[in-house]
Amino acid sequence: MSTFDTSTANLLSACEARKAIDEGHLSSQELVKACFDRIDSLEESIGAWSHLDKELAMQQAREADEFRSRGLRVGALHGLPIGIKDIIDTCDYPTELGTVIHEGRKPSSNATLVSLLKEAGAIILGKTVTTELALLSPGKTSNPHNNEHTPGGSSSGSAAAVASAMVPLAVGTQTNGSVIRPASFCGIYGFKPSFGRISRQGVLKQSPPLDTVGVFARCLEDLALIADVVMRYDQQDEAMSPIAPPCIGSVMAEPVPVDPVFAFIRTPAWDKTEQVTKDGFRELIEALNESKAKTIDIFDLPAQFDNIFEDHRVVMEADIARNFGKEYTCGKAELSAELRSMIERGQKITDEDYNASVATIADYASSLDEIFELYDAVLTPATPGPAPLGLHTTGDPVMNTIWTFCGTPTLNLPLLQSEEGLPLGVQLVGEKDDDARLFRTARWLLDSLNDL
Amino acid sequence: MSTFDTSTANLLSACEARKAIDEGHLSSQELVKACFDRIDSLEESIGAWSHLDKELAMQQAREADEFRSRGLRVGALHGLPIGIKDIIDTCDYPTELGTVIHEGRKPSSNATLVSLLKEAGAIILGKTVTTELALLSPGKTSNPHNNEHTPGGSSSGSAAAVASAMVPLAVGTQTNGSVIRPASFCGIYGFKPSFGRISRQGVLKQSPPLDTVGVFARCLEDLALIADVVMRYDQQDEAMSPIAPPCIGSVMAEPVPVDPVFAFIRTPAWDKTEQVTKDGFRELIEALNESKAKTIDIFDLPAQFDNIFEDHRVVMEADIARNFGKEYTCGKAELSAELRSMIERGQKITDEDYNASVATIADYASSLDEIFELYDAVLTPATPGPAPLGLHTTGDPVMNTIWTFCGTPTLNLPLLQSEEGLPLGVQLVGEKDDDARLFRTARWLLDSLNDL
Repeated sequence: MSTFDTSTANLLSACEARKAIDEGHLSSQELVKACFDRIDSLEESIGAWSHLDKELAMQQAREADEFRSRGLRVGALHGLPIGIKDIIDTCDYPTELGTVIHEGRKPSSNATLVSLLKEAGAIILGKTVTTELALLSPGKTSNPHNNEHTPGGSSSGSAAAVASAMVPLAVGTQTNGSVIRPASFCGIYGFKPSFGRISRQGVLKQSPPLDTVGVFARCLEDLALIADVVMRYDQQDEAMSPIAPPCIGSVMAEPVPVDPVFAFIRTPAWDKTEQVTKDGFRELIEALNESKAKTIDIFDLPAQFDNIFEDHRVVMEADIARNFGKEYTCGKAELSAELRSMIERGQKITDEDYNASVATIADYASSLDEIFELYDAVLTPATPGPAPLGLHTTGDPVMNTIWTFCGTPTLNLPLLQSEEGLPLGVQLVGEKDDDARLFRTARWLLDSLNDL
Repeated sequence: MSTFDTSTANLLSACEARKAIDEGHLSSQELVKACFDRIDSLEESIGAWSHLDKELAMQQAREADEFRSRGLRVGALHGLPIGIKDIIDTCDYPTELGTVIHEGRKPSSNATLVSLLKEAGAIILGKTVTTELALLSPGKTSNPHNNEHTPGGSSSGSAAAVASAMVPLAVGTQTNGSVIRPASFCGIYGFKPSFGRISRQGVLKQSPPLDTVGVFARCLEDLALIADVVMRYDQQDEAMSPIAPPCIGSVMAEPVPVDPVFAFIRTPAWDKTEQVTKDGFRELIEALNESKAKTIDIFDLPAQFDNIFEDHRVVMEADIARNFGKEYTCGKAELSAELRSMIERGQKITDEDYNASVATIADYASSLDEIFELYDAVLTPATPGPAPLGLHTTGDPVMNTIWTFCGTPTLNLPLLQSEEGLPLGVQLVGEKDDDARLFRTARWLLDSLNDL
């Protein structure tokens, strides 16, 4: 026991920390203290957090340790700290939505997903920085790999906090590319589940046909651990249906019934990818061809998909005009020029055009079904390149739009790197509502690469 | 496959039906049809249901079969029919609370527990008869073992429907003895969990410090199956805390670490028990002493407990006056004389007396803690005797008051019988918030008796 260095417990994955706590080598208080020590030393340069309350977090950790010492059964995340994007309601912390318009906003109850995390024993360490109303205008966060580069957005703080080992787990949201993009830029694992599988009750409403909650971690097992906690039916979210939880952890632990086959898809946005991405994927596919992954076909999307970016824009901007109408009317001067323009564009979209674009979601999705009849998963870049220089934008979500619009589950696997050492993600996309199989396929893919 | 008689599938336990469906011998549609055939032949004499919709139930069963055939993961209760007490909100069926005052009431959403059942794949077969506002005045239900006897109440229809194999599972509620008493009278397994472990959001509010949701089945495994689905934290129920689900099924399957020891407690209500109960318990204890159950001590409750019935009455009647004030004011003529008197008694209880009685809950509960330091579980009668003759009352809850008031988990085990063949239950009580251990102890007890 004495050989275990609790002062670096912040470096452990959630699964490792859970094991160390189970085996008596670590307490939740020691883990939370190590996370706060890390935050104390790095937060000034990274700026991942919008609200922190060390005293409250330490008190939760004490209670978690005390509960455990009574011998009662503990949940999957008992005593593990987690960061929550500041557009997700928490009653213990302010939830300010990334804009001064909502300064001091404090919800009276937790979002359903926060309540599920608390039931599982998680400790809400604090709220993480989001861009303005989870859209384009960046917050204070910088990329932990190079402070002059963006961490990506809009879940900037969640990705940066996990990447810099301030916390093992965090929650974000994606309406275009706000989970997978920052995960790619920050070099961590990210998961955007199938549409309608994590409750959005208590989460800022941006565009209901698109808004999706996602999670961040430093390994695939950790993503499965937290996903199994939050992927529960909630009748308060009208996009959800009462279907069984996916049990990702146990499915992922099963061997694959047959070796999976992959489609490498360039997407209509391929010409926006940087040379480093093209090179990285060429090498990755060569490496996989040398491994036991026998089938990687290069597959192009039907021409129909050329319009998906415009359909996504119509849905998202019309919804934003509707849902942020109050902010526009009452706080226009406090909004960024970019968001004002977006709202004004959205106001001009007719109901007819909006409905027509929403109706295309099912068409695109059924085109994807044809791919998933042939392939277990799609491989495609998570971002056009590594995190761009500068903190004035959070980068381009163009590699994420298709999968968000179609509601398919996607993972960011942090497998590539630029010459300057900036991370670059591989996006693995699975069939809608078979999130557990996507994880099992990802596990197999990572194992295959490790065997090389 | 051809040897499996699907027409008697209603006789299967939930676990057996689940296995038969998993193995392809039975479909959910066949099971639901068998249940409706049984209802068609027995409902006129038993009267367990207040609302049934065969078409809707068959449609749910078709959807369940279709979902399963797609190879997607199914929940713990996938395709299994269940009855819901008519004080628990359902949006697909009326919820009339056992009184003409609420005739035609149709909630706009499901109670949280119904939503959890649907997530697990259960088919809501219909709503079961409750007494008037879940209190004293009986509904139309009779005891399946003898139609001239009461089924017990207030969860009369739930207990009778399960006992007569119209449905394998049902949900009820207990504020005094409304789960354990009808389970005892109807000869089935019943479970009232620890206070605050099943959400009461969407359940008729009678007395918030006492109201507890419970479940019925024809075997212990089935109780565990459904309990694990509904025992989930819900922040909308202010009596709940975010603690981990108990995982009863898996704990129950573990061997006991050491042979459990039992306290046989007569309680201050012992002089109300009938001779058949006294004889039954004497024989049971003799039998257990011959079995491997080595320690069964006779234990008396401290004199302090003599007042618990009065404290329970004060809390319950004051709350009823408060919560049924609207029914009293607007529908007095439609209320039974007994309920009117109860409300009028409740109106006279001062806040001071109410608060003093509520405060005693913690005192009584800590006295019980001393017992549970020495014993794994308490054995005590579930009812003073078998179901009384006549349908004008639902029997005496006096054997249940202590455990409801203290919030301890209790099971009815249908182990005894009167000479006329009427069932009589053994109540097994566990330590508060250790519901899973209570089931494991019960499993051990049943196995010990089987080994005799």
